[in-house]
Amino acid sequence: MERVAIGIDIGGTNIEIGIVNKQGTILLSFRWKTSDFLQAEEFVARLAQTTENLLSNNDWRIIGIGIGAPTANYYTGAIEYAPNMPWKGIIPLQRMTYQATGIPTKLTNDANAVAHGELVFGAGREMKHFSVITLGTGLGSGIVVDGHVLYGQHGLAGEFGHTQVDPNGRQCSCGRLGCLETYVSIRGIELTYQKLGGKENLNPRDIYLRAQQGDELSIETYKKTAQILGNKLADLVHLFDPEAIFLYGGVANAHPLIIPVAQAEMDRQLLKAFRGKVQIRPSDLLDKKGAVLGAAALIWQDEK
Amino acid sequence: MERVAIGIDIGGTNIEIGIVNKQGTILLSFRWKTSDFLQAEEFVARLAQTTENLLSNNDWRIIGIGIGAPTANYYTGAIEYAPNMPWKGIIPLQRMTYQATGIPTKLTNDANAVAHGELVFGAGREMKHFSVITLGTGLGSGIVVDGHVLYGQHGLAGEFGHTQVDPNGRQCSCGRLGCLETYVSIRGIELTYQKLGGKENLNPRDIYLRAQQGDELSIETYKKTAQILGNKLADLVHLFDPEAIFLYGGVANAHPLIIPVAQAEMDRQLLKAFRGKVQIRPSDLLDKKGAVLGAAALIWQDEK
Repeated sequence: MERVAIGIDIGGTNIEIGIVNKQGTILLSFRWKTSDFLQAEEFVARLAQTTENLLSNNDWRIIGIGIGAPTANYYTGAIEYAPNMPWKGIIPLQRMTYQATGIPTKLTNDANAVAHGELVFGAGREMKHFSVITLGTGLGSGIVVDGHVLYGQHGLAGEFGHTQVDPNGRQCSCGRLGCLETYVSIRGIELTYQKLGGKENLNPRDIYLRAQQGDELSIETYKKTAQILGNKLADLVHLFDPEAIFLYGGVANAHPLIIPVAQAEMDRQLLKAFRGKVQIRPSDLLDKKGAVLGAAALIWQDEK
Repeated sequence: MERVAIGIDIGGTNIEIGIVNKQGTILLSFRWKTSDFLQAEEFVARLAQTTENLLSNNDWRIIGIGIGAPTANYYTGAIEYAPNMPWKGIIPLQRMTYQATGIPTKLTNDANAVAHGELVFGAGREMKHFSVITLGTGLGSGIVVDGHVLYGQHGLAGEFGHTQVDPNGRQCSCGRLGCLETYVSIRGIELTYQKLGGKENLNPRDIYLRAQQGDELSIETYKKTAQILGNKLADLVHLFDPEAIFLYGGVANAHPLIIPVAQAEMDRQLLKAFRGKVQIRPSDLLDKKGAVLGAAALIWQDEK
């Protein structure tokens, strides 16, 4: 009988589920539409039914369920007012899942889940201090200190996307001006492209493809984005002194354009004592189902 | 026989030494001039002689020596290129002190020493996550995560003074533009006073006294300083999610003018989930010899 964990990545559009063994191999995975579940209760009921089916058809022992979800709180085990989810208010998903399945469950937010994944299955296995930056619709971060993902006093730590690039900068949806997320994210890159003179409505993937074909405006868009990220990463390094910074998420697929510029700008902005010591690199989980692996890592980390 | 620790605060001008018991009472203290010791060897030799005298004249057992010094590295036990010290280059002070005295020695930088002090002897005793900001010639910070002072991968963590307020801001001595330290520090406050139209060369203490007497320009100087600090503390809170932020150092004596404005600005800049949860307050060690207590706490923390 193989011992496995279930890793679940809940997003506004899809719910990705994977059966993950101790080595970080995804033995089986499938996807549900988030909108199929008007209430979290419906999702939990279907999950319970599915785990029973899985157990009766496979020689597995499920040792735990790990869930990554937007605005989820590791301490309270609840999704708290997720803006892009059909489930509103405070959802005590950890307790609900445990009650429905009888399987021990842990919950964290999506960026922290990737940090757990890097720590248990990625290059972070060998490190005690590192950060994971997730670049997508927003900019999230999971920060590892002394071999543990940092949660802070209220379970809210790691909001690097809402540190300020410029006190007179772009309006952020959080209400603040000039948050990093307004520049280094899908919407941020689109806006930078337009501000530099781009007339079309291109997404970061299109802009990246054009940049690879030599389009000046697209190259400039990524250069500016990477410079802003690199400068701000100097702040992160000054505070946390990590060994490495890993980039994850859809936008991070453009890392061949982002990392060299961000690394040079970061080193230029660092205090001398830090220069050359901290590497920016793509996450080991970038080409994999990193959020599913990370959610499963919430369970496997206890056996490290 | 009472067990005591020696706490030593090494600065560019003075070296403060205190004999500290487990309760954090300074039983005896004295001060040397840093410039009296052209070499670190001379300081260590005098310290060894002094501890022998102390032991022969008092019923003490010295369990350790803790030292706080600028640019000192906790991991290497060395002072590394301190700009304002007569001792140049890399000084392996931890090893030198142990070899001269035979007493176990620990070394850290001055801001981290205060964080250790707050953790062992101050309000931080009851907390797992907090930050100490030291406001003086520069702006330093000691950050406590999960009950431990954060050192990071290379012993360099906690350089909050060199995070950026404004990418087009004031020139910092480190080479970067707009570091927090260029605004919130002795020199930063003096400069702000002058930029607001002040014609005299006043130090922050003079400006504080005038502000207390109702001088508009002086009040405005502290208000601007506190707003910049409060806004930047929102970044710190977004990353670390602490329970409290403690202010320490000469400039922190103006806390009745600084804290209310900084607290309001910080809460205004925080994500909703954080608002009202993190208190800015004067360090418990502010009116005491906090750096000496903090250095001694390096020793006493092992008995917590």
